Amino acid sequence: MIKWLSEPIHKMDENDLLQAQLKQDQLTKPQGSLGLLETIAIQLSALQQTHSPNVDEAKIIIFAADHGIAQENVSAFPQVVTAEMVKNFSAGGAAICVLSRQHGLALEVINLGLVTELPEMKRVENKVISSGTHSFLREAAMNKAQFRQAFELAKEKVDQAKDNHCRLLILGEMGIANTTSASALVCALESIEPQVITGVGTGLDSDGLQHKIQVIKDALFFHQEKHPAGLNSPLDILQTLGGYEIVALTASYIRAAQQGIISIVDGFIGSVAALFAIRIKPECKAWLIFSHQSAEQGHKMVLELIGVKPLLGFNLRLGEGSGAALAYPLIRSACLLQNEMASFSSASVSTSVHSSEP
Amino acid sequence: MIKWLSEPIHKMDENDLLQAQLKQDQLTKPQGSLGLLETIAIQLSALQQTHSPNVDEAKIIIFAADHGIAQENVSAFPQVVTAEMVKNFSAGGAAICVLSRQHGLALEVINLGLVTELPEMKRVENKVISSGTHSFLREAAMNKAQFRQAFELAKEKVDQAKDNHCRLLILGEMGIANTTSASALVCALESIEPQVITGVGTGLDSDGLQHKIQVIKDALFFHQEKHPAGLNSPLDILQTLGGYEIVALTASYIRAAQQGIISIVDGFIGSVAALFAIRIKPECKAWLIFSHQSAEQGHKMVLELIGVKPLLGFNLRLGEGSGAALAYPLIRSACLLQNEMASFSSASVSTSVHSSEP
Repeated sequence: MIKWLSEPIHKMDENDLLQAQLKQDQLTKPQGSLGLLETIAIQLSALQQTHSPNVDEAKIIIFAADHGIAQENVSAFPQVVTAEMVKNFSAGGAAICVLSRQHGLALEVINLGLVTELPEMKRVENKVISSGTHSFLREAAMNKAQFRQAFELAKEKVDQAKDNHCRLLILGEMGIANTTSASALVCALESIEPQVITGVGTGLDSDGLQHKIQVIKDALFFHQEKHPAGLNSPLDILQTLGGYEIVALTASYIRAAQQGIISIVDGFIGSVAALFAIRIKPECKAWLIFSHQSAEQGHKMVLELIGVKPLLGFNLRLGEGSGAALAYPLIRSACLLQNEMASFSSASVSTSVHSSEP
Repeated sequence: MIKWLSEPIHKMDENDLLQAQLKQDQLTKPQGSLGLLETIAIQLSALQQTHSPNVDEAKIIIFAADHGIAQENVSAFPQVVTAEMVKNFSAGGAAICVLSRQHGLALEVINLGLVTELPEMKRVENKVISSGTHSFLREAAMNKAQFRQAFELAKEKVDQAKDNHCRLLILGEMGIANTTSASALVCALESIEPQVITGVGTGLDSDGLQHKIQVIKDALFFHQEKHPAGLNSPLDILQTLGGYEIVALTASYIRAAQQGIISIVDGFIGSVAALFAIRIKPECKAWLIFSHQSAEQGHKMVLELIGVKPLLGFNLRLGEGSGAALAYPLIRSACLLQNEMASFSSASVSTSVHSSEP
């Protein structure tokens, strides 16, 4: 259905991994002593097919959209906050803006479908597919054309980044009620009970959480009974229960991998989108770096389903790509260490007495 | 005995903590959603007694020294590597040099007592107390005068940093065999059996590890039997079993706290020095940020003895201050977020429907 999905993704080559490992082992440190930083550097070397992995050219893209399911009172914040936060992104006052300035990265926000009409604003591109999605409680969140539009818009953004020599994308999202959508998506994809995966999002109390779980249960029951075809495949599930920003994230992860661009995955929403990307196109997994395990209840389980251990455990639960941006300098450190450290021979440092080196 | 040890350390004030928490709660994010970053920002606000904590003025100091105990074949690397690595620090080829450049931080190396005589070198200050310490297997590693000299040299470096408006120190160490010294120190201070705490350091095989444990056992037995006075107090233990760089780290943590400077603690060696600093001067603990839990066996236990959870778990085991430097941008993020994010009112963002705000 979406033609470019069949385009290939470069797979890490055993020999490239070995070459990168050999380079690491010649650097002036005990072998393996940089731990996870070595693993990252070796992975990026093999992905980029180079001895000198580089993520200096990077950018932040935030996809924003509103969710029909917000009508069901599933969020601690009113729906207008999606638009208010997009304005905050534009004005530079949000967490992700602070991090983008700290790391010298450009930030772009794509409005894929807010219910509030936005004026022209710095950093914000209006690509409204519709005024929010439908509430997936009694119908599909979007129709096929809308779904494809979200998918294609994400592809365009990634292709544009590629044209601008971007090597790494920090992908974020904004959309009041999107943890409800993300939780429902995981339940449908992996046959998990809503109470297991559903968390408090931006800060529901326990009554609010119970209500949110019930809404997801009711929605899943409705679609299973009335429109089971809408839950047939990962793509169908995304269309039925997703939001435009989640669809765009899934599409971005896949397209970025096809274009040879690393993506840093943020929190719960990002990881759910990544899970879908991997189920749709398993080879994209190697191109994803998972930044942190958030405080949101279901995130740990989603990371386990994917089979990854994220870099940080800071108990974040903000979204916006904030955790991904936080982790960016660590990934950059991994690259710089591999590229700039002296070797035992160039620095005339003696090797381990147990080493196989001369 | 060391007069300045009695100088006071500013304690966090409940009201300053509360004010910082109130400021955090007005920023445009769900309350608490920045997790550990909020905790750090609030802690630094209260320590620096400001609404805008700042760690931009920071520097890296590495204390280097040789250890008499290296004669007992307790390290995977020959002793000459201490000097070779100091040259590597000077030339810019070591891991810590790469990180210092990435973060734009000055790096200074203090040679407190290498066995190799060093020429004048960029970034290296020669303050040789003696040509290495004595092997603590059969005598104290240093005499009282040498111990005091290491303590005072560290104080001078911290005071100098203070004069240069430094707000944060990244403290590292270099000294072949110093995990043997650090392990012995913890055993003596906390009455722990050597096999529990002793690890492979830079990469011993299992025979090497058994030998290292036996050396520590023999040394502890010798001092308990022959010179129990050398194990009387934390300061005595440091003099008996320490190395100059470990003593300097302990002194630096205490002095930095007295001077209102945050220190980032690196790995096993740094944490052992921090444990001593806290036992000597408990109020310094609030001024220490523990960067990571290393792969070295005893590090987890030392962190538990201190009662802290470090920021990262990257399986590092390099030393040099590398883990502390790696964590620096995360601490900077915490400050920048608190200082630069918009508030709900300034950005006209609606608060949570459950919020107590109007």
